[in-house]
Amino acid sequence: MPKASKQFGTADDIEIAFYDAISRADLDALMAIWADDEEIVCIHPDGTRLIGYAAIRASWEEIFTRGGVHIRPLQLHLLQNMMSAVHNLVEAVYTTSGTQRDVHILATNVYVKTPLGWRIALHHASTAPGQAKTELVASNVLH
Amino acid sequence: MPKASKQFGTADDIEIAFYDAISRADLDALMAIWADDEEIVCIHPDGTRLIGYAAIRASWEEIFTRGGVHIRPLQLHLLQNMMSAVHNLVEAVYTTSGTQRDVHILATNVYVKTPLGWRIALHHASTAPGQAKTELVASNVLH
Repeated sequence: MPKASKQFGTADDIEIAFYDAISRADLDALMAIWADDEEIVCIHPDGTRLIGYAAIRASWEEIFTRGGVHIRPLQLHLLQNMMSAVHNLVEAVYTTSGTQRDVHILATNVYVKTPLGWRIALHHASTAPGQAKTELVASNVLH
Repeated sequence: MPKASKQFGTADDIEIAFYDAISRADLDALMAIWADDEEIVCIHPDGTRLIGYAAIRASWEEIFTRGGVHIRPLQLHLLQNMMSAVHNLVEAVYTTSGTQRDVHILATNVYVKTPLGWRIALHHASTAPGQAKTELVASNVLH
């Protein structure tokens, strides 16, 4: 796995970078923010579990051949301590013409504090019926 | 939310109790091991996000009207520190006659250490195509 440069900031900064990279279909930017560990986990909606850098990179590369993914993270719920942060988000999904799709995605993102700064270690996404409610609900912090 | 008695043990003990309660359709046992916090999160396969004790209890009550759920947790991946543990599991699903179904469930379970001991704070389950591989893969620990 290529070594990423040191990044400071918070788990929130990494989350913003994660969704920004997805929207731009920027594979290198996306993969640079994963933890440098072969046990990282990624589950795409309706997909099997991918473990490790190579499998996760290949899956996003295939997704990005169809362009960026137009999602908007909403309704964040948080569990956080000094070394890890668990975010659960509702993702509104849009067509390329900007119409909101009649499904939404639920994502659990786990961030860990590494010697290089915060990194994503697990992304678990699944689909749910109906449009996401678009109002941004205030973040809630559990513990 | 009813106050549960103090339970010691580890996140692993709570996970065993979680799947045991599901298999026995024991609603009280299941709900006693959730964190005493209104921000707990539960996502059933193909379902929307449930937040808080009442919504989560009602969803399991409805599931249990059809009897226990026959699942077998396999292929655990772990992220753990002193205050929280994130488990990602493959769940093999069986019919009541004991036949393995041709889908499997992927689950991310987040446990937090509370004054009452370890409790579950987030359960995110989603379906994936194909049977789960039934061999038990050795646990891997990330960080």
